[in-house]
Amino acid sequence: MKRRFISLLCAAALLMSGSFLRAEVPDSIPQVRNIILMIPDGCSLASYSVARWYQRYLNEDQKYLNIDPYLCGTVLTYCSDSPVGDSAPTTSCYMTGYPSQAGYVSTYPVSAGDQDVIPMDPQRAYTPVATLLEMGKIKLGKRTGLVVTCEFPHATPADCSSHSASRKRYDIIVPQMLHQNMNVVMGGGSSLMPKAEKARLEAKGYDVVLDDLQALRKSKKSNLWALFGKQSLPNDMDRDTTKIPSISEMTKIAIDKLDDKKSTGFFLMVEGSKVDWAAHANDPVGIVSELLAFDKACKVALDFAKKDGHTAVVILSDHGNSGISLAKEDGYNHPQNMNKKQFFEAFVRHKKTAEGLSTAINNTPYAQLDSLMMDLSGIKLTNQERDALLNTEDYVFSPITKDQRKLIDGNPFASKTVYDYCCKLLTKHSPVGFTTHGHTGEDVILFAYHPENAVPRGMTINVDLADYLARLWGKRAPYDSLTDEIFSPQNEVFKGMKIIEVPAKKDYKKLAKYDFVKENLQQYAPTLVIKNGKKTMTVEAYVDYVTINGKKKQIPSVTIYEPNTKKFYLPKSLRALML
Amino acid sequence: MKRRFISLLCAAALLMSGSFLRAEVPDSIPQVRNIILMIPDGCSLASYSVARWYQRYLNEDQKYLNIDPYLCGTVLTYCSDSPVGDSAPTTSCYMTGYPSQAGYVSTYPVSAGDQDVIPMDPQRAYTPVATLLEMGKIKLGKRTGLVVTCEFPHATPADCSSHSASRKRYDIIVPQMLHQNMNVVMGGGSSLMPKAEKARLEAKGYDVVLDDLQALRKSKKSNLWALFGKQSLPNDMDRDTTKIPSISEMTKIAIDKLDDKKSTGFFLMVEGSKVDWAAHANDPVGIVSELLAFDKACKVALDFAKKDGHTAVVILSDHGNSGISLAKEDGYNHPQNMNKKQFFEAFVRHKKTAEGLSTAINNTPYAQLDSLMMDLSGIKLTNQERDALLNTEDYVFSPITKDQRKLIDGNPFASKTVYDYCCKLLTKHSPVGFTTHGHTGEDVILFAYHPENAVPRGMTINVDLADYLARLWGKRAPYDSLTDEIFSPQNEVFKGMKIIEVPAKKDYKKLAKYDFVKENLQQYAPTLVIKNGKKTMTVEAYVDYVTINGKKKQIPSVTIYEPNTKKFYLPKSLRALML
Repeated sequence: MKRRFISLLCAAALLMSGSFLRAEVPDSIPQVRNIILMIPDGCSLASYSVARWYQRYLNEDQKYLNIDPYLCGTVLTYCSDSPVGDSAPTTSCYMTGYPSQAGYVSTYPVSAGDQDVIPMDPQRAYTPVATLLEMGKIKLGKRTGLVVTCEFPHATPADCSSHSASRKRYDIIVPQMLHQNMNVVMGGGSSLMPKAEKARLEAKGYDVVLDDLQALRKSKKSNLWALFGKQSLPNDMDRDTTKIPSISEMTKIAIDKLDDKKSTGFFLMVEGSKVDWAAHANDPVGIVSELLAFDKACKVALDFAKKDGHTAVVILSDHGNSGISLAKEDGYNHPQNMNKKQFFEAFVRHKKTAEGLSTAINNTPYAQLDSLMMDLSGIKLTNQERDALLNTEDYVFSPITKDQRKLIDGNPFASKTVYDYCCKLLTKHSPVGFTTHGHTGEDVILFAYHPENAVPRGMTINVDLADYLARLWGKRAPYDSLTDEIFSPQNEVFKGMKIIEVPAKKDYKKLAKYDFVKENLQQYAPTLVIKNGKKTMTVEAYVDYVTINGKKKQIPSVTIYEPNTKKFYLPKSLRALML
Repeated sequence: MKRRFISLLCAAALLMSGSFLRAEVPDSIPQVRNIILMIPDGCSLASYSVARWYQRYLNEDQKYLNIDPYLCGTVLTYCSDSPVGDSAPTTSCYMTGYPSQAGYVSTYPVSAGDQDVIPMDPQRAYTPVATLLEMGKIKLGKRTGLVVTCEFPHATPADCSSHSASRKRYDIIVPQMLHQNMNVVMGGGSSLMPKAEKARLEAKGYDVVLDDLQALRKSKKSNLWALFGKQSLPNDMDRDTTKIPSISEMTKIAIDKLDDKKSTGFFLMVEGSKVDWAAHANDPVGIVSELLAFDKACKVALDFAKKDGHTAVVILSDHGNSGISLAKEDGYNHPQNMNKKQFFEAFVRHKKTAEGLSTAINNTPYAQLDSLMMDLSGIKLTNQERDALLNTEDYVFSPITKDQRKLIDGNPFASKTVYDYCCKLLTKHSPVGFTTHGHTGEDVILFAYHPENAVPRGMTINVDLADYLARLWGKRAPYDSLTDEIFSPQNEVFKGMKIIEVPAKKDYKKLAKYDFVKENLQQYAPTLVIKNGKKTMTVEAYVDYVTINGKKKQIPSVTIYEPNTKKFYLPKSLRALML
């Protein structure tokens, strides 16, 4: 099985080499110092098109997105066991070179046998696999950073910097990220930063900023954690610009801090996280809001890269979402006969995304509903539209009592929540159609900048895209030797020694997902105790150190405990410390 | 207005030059001898993806489409007055450098004022504009050809070789195409070839093949018209391979005939016409059938180009269609958890497209319906599905009398026609979703091969794609000087002379659209008579000659009469002949 997979990768590599622009040097990609990977999560081709037309409708001079000139191909993205991708395994694949399954964070998947999209080795199920970020940090001394608009342990940033067979296990992911020694982390999730961890990071020389934009702007230290919002950041169109930074401002700050010319370079991942969320919700305004904000962040990265001369910028989504199209059945059967005003005049009146509009509706007395709708969305509600809103379960100001509210048969706006209602309403007043609230399996669009123009071309398969990223630093993906070096199973590392597994003190299921502030996460993680002769090593899970005879010893990676295999995965080098 | 348009084009050209791979030679594209333009009509990104997964599901070794390695960007395609494209104006734009309106065939659009997507000159409304094919043929001595699977005067092939403000006016388009002196025309529409025209073409040295595959294969002459089917060709999956050629066989024959090494090269346009038709119908099997057949034709062209070394192949659709996505709401909310078998097992059982299946259903007694459905589609009909079929208006063998048939409320398969019913049924038994039966406005995907790799990159606007095609031959689009040379208005060409307009002998509205066999098309076209001194010139419309004092004089272009302006558009050089 393993052999098959390897030969398949070789074949893929051969094919890929022919698909590079620099066909004359198929086996060598000129190396760069810095890699900036930018991911508009869950973004389909039509999302770019709708955003571009929207922008152009507002300003005829803005005919291009900032990323447009760098469009160079597509990427086939999938789960190891499904033709359609999921955020956790797809970015895992970009980061590790291995596809994986829904929910898996840089962890080798369980083989689905003949339903594997490419053959996976059943022996490696559930084991952590090293990422580009880890390779850069550990083997090449790169500085590392993440900028996201979701909560920081969400699938995509987690993929870069942690390992778990379940993206939901924040008890596993958060401590890994806090101990990964990344230089810059910015995004959402201030509720997920334990006070003790904040203090520890500050003691290590970090600026740690929680919900304080001015403090972010004043940050002088070269290492930074900055989190805004208990969970995710609001959509760009909805944000209070005095309190919440834009993704482009965060990207600028991250690059400024990471670009320490004395170091050997950096890796930065920037995620336009909520393009995906808006697509799941079928909120066309949210898609545009988040994608245009992301495009501005791409400009920051691209401008830096062009000036720097040693930086590659690779921009691609992880999977499609929502089946979005520009034009739909309802009244748009001959869209080629509709002019731009008919397409976009109602659409550009929306001043809030469905997320922002639903919040505003629930903060505004019913008497002011009509003026609110007109102000924020340019919509005069029809009776049908109003009825649907009044019957949503969570409309605070509805004149209908809760027990009398119901989903009205045949009302196309009938919704359980105000948010879902707003999505339907804004979609109606837009030129956009959707086929699903789930992910879709079309290729994603690839944009890339390389100082010597050595960018992928054609349709690249996800595992080969990972290899392209590795080759930018003269490496190859997957990073099997690094995985072997830092994630060997406990029984191999400490073969012949006494190994005692100490379960977690507290049950992780009792940990409130968005209230880590007063927690000691270590209490929710198991510990390993190894004895050999006079030496005793204590290995806590999800941290960057071990303790030998009571003395802390830093390690370059994080310690992993994987509940499915019930094993720790640790650096091979720990064995020598116990001899 | 005109000035604004020109400066806009210049700005676009500047922007474009930076978006080419060969950034070091932004203003020069190494010229090629031959251009092959391949258009999968109405093809969206997900169409390629679905076809690729389908192919791979049948054969794991076939991971790539033939065109995949050449994917290099996207193209923004639109009508001059709408963000969403239509076949006639979009390929017109690729061919002429000017966007146009729905229905316009290489004809300058009426300005929509502030609703123009780019400013159009109202003075030029309805006037013919020269195409790349005409430029190649007239100014560069290129051989020219068309290969399509629709009827030959359909929008896309018409765009290359004729001019009309209405794509529906076959009385205008067919004679132009028959007199365009193209070297090879292959496709559908044997009902549209008048006997007299067949004889005329044969007398000029053409092989003219009508519904005779063996004759096509035996054709020895270097010039050929070959038409199969009264209107379009059947879908590739449905065709009788003993009677109907594949699009790749036609492409091979066309290249063999056009590639006369003695000449200065050729232009060939190949259209996978019915990708669009299947998309309009929402027939997922039809889309796959037509796109994979088209992809094989692309391989023929690409293989030739790589061997030849002097040929560029440019492959792109004219507009999106149907809002197709891989995954949909119905049971596919978590498609990332569905395996390839769940996605494709039912889909690959379909042995006919919806078009082919509907024909089979109407050719098979009701008693054999169940076995037919199982054989051709692997489907055991549910009662609901059966009820919907029996109630279609045109089901020949329905046991329900015609007057009792009705659209059943709440039955999702309820359809007026068997064809539409089959589309709904095959979509249900597929992993595919649609948002519309109409066109969609996302960018189209660009694939290109150039012997020196000078292909467009990034997002290219349609007018700039036209310019790229022109630059392959060292020209620039639009071809205003050629338009001026061959399509000057009658009053300018013959200024000061006596001009008599003779109306058509017969009303074109009485011409049966698909029964031209016994017709004399000239009787449906107006004539111009010009007198100057002792000279009398007679100009018939839509032909390649004029008559001076009773003597025929060949011209390199076709004569155009445009009903909207009520003017002929003719070569400037005709004036000298009258002096």
